[in-house]
Amino acid sequence: MVPAVSWRRLGAVAAVALGLELVYRFLRRRPPPVREVLFFPAPLVCAEPLLSPGTCCSCPLPHHTDGALSALLRRLLGARRSLELCIFTFSSPPLARTVLLLHGRGVRVRVITDSDYMAAAGSQIGELRKAGVVVRHSQSSGYMHHKFAVVDRSIVITGSMNWTQQAIQTNHENVLVTDDGACVSAYLEEFERLWEEYDPAGYCFFPKDDQNGP
Amino acid sequence: MVPAVSWRRLGAVAAVALGLELVYRFLRRRPPPVREVLFFPAPLVCAEPLLSPGTCCSCPLPHHTDGALSALLRRLLGARRSLELCIFTFSSPPLARTVLLLHGRGVRVRVITDSDYMAAAGSQIGELRKAGVVVRHSQSSGYMHHKFAVVDRSIVITGSMNWTQQAIQTNHENVLVTDDGACVSAYLEEFERLWEEYDPAGYCFFPKDDQNGP
Repeated sequence: MVPAVSWRRLGAVAAVALGLELVYRFLRRRPPPVREVLFFPAPLVCAEPLLSPGTCCSCPLPHHTDGALSALLRRLLGARRSLELCIFTFSSPPLARTVLLLHGRGVRVRVITDSDYMAAAGSQIGELRKAGVVVRHSQSSGYMHHKFAVVDRSIVITGSMNWTQQAIQTNHENVLVTDDGACVSAYLEEFERLWEEYDPAGYCFFPKDDQNGP
Repeated sequence: MVPAVSWRRLGAVAAVALGLELVYRFLRRRPPPVREVLFFPAPLVCAEPLLSPGTCCSCPLPHHTDGALSALLRRLLGARRSLELCIFTFSSPPLARTVLLLHGRGVRVRVITDSDYMAAAGSQIGELRKAGVVVRHSQSSGYMHHKFAVVDRSIVITGSMNWTQQAIQTNHENVLVTDDGACVSAYLEEFERLWEEYDPAGYCFFPKDDQNGP
């Protein structure tokens, strides 16, 4: 005997199945991935509208928040918990102000930089240290030439650009921003590796191959 | 009157629907996305096994094809149609050999570099030009500080690393490889913009603001 199924019942089953599929897709929805590429040089703008919104600034620079520098500042200012910086040369005042602002907000900021360039003219590393930001630096002969940042362990900012005024205003540079999980993990792993390698407790002031040392 | 539907017929409809879904998914399948991060310094290896596979090399370097440099060479050697290079300093012999190999295979190679550094000691730009590779260079006061490549208009290779021996063997550097469409388009657009900007037909040998000029 062949059981009979009404079209109405079949329609109800199909409707329920469709409803479940929609609920499943709704629950699985994800925000669009972050994939942004910023190109420099960027026109010089005042960073105050982003760093101190609501305050009045009378400097002669444009006060809009368009352009690559503003986009970079916005990405950094999005940090709520942590900021890892691995920067070869760091002399840009607006970027230093951004880092200090985040440090003041309680974001855990850690900075790795290059030993040769951290004391160069205009370097902001001293200002960061004075404010209590923990900075570690390279100890090897090669340059610590990275220029990347990791925001909240979820977004990586990398590329060719050192954090200097010349790079921002004059050079042709690129900065890639991504939240791709594999990339973020790779950069975080490199940061942690260098952070341990540059631990001051492991400094070697008199290398074994220094024959002139004591 | 309610029409009767047999379970067998219902099963057949479900099977056809499932089959169509599988075919649809099969046709829509895509290779996994390319997301690779290479970190340097990398141990020095001989590039011959990748550049001239099958030939015998007696140099004293290791001849395996592991490591970050080999991974970078492999990505470049994957080019079949085009290679756009935008490199600040280019003095690495194995990377130059790779580019010349691709040029010899008929891959359309275009190079943009920095005017100040292209004639520096060890630069490979002259070798590329001698072999017929088209090179254009910056003409502005700021550095052309990019270090990116686009392979077959589908993969972008970018990061902190100049194509020099020091960068590969000594510095801490990162190179990100991605086939994300939005990123690739952005870098290609930047390349084409600079390619036009640095067109020799537009050279200005006596800038208007040069008051000491004729």
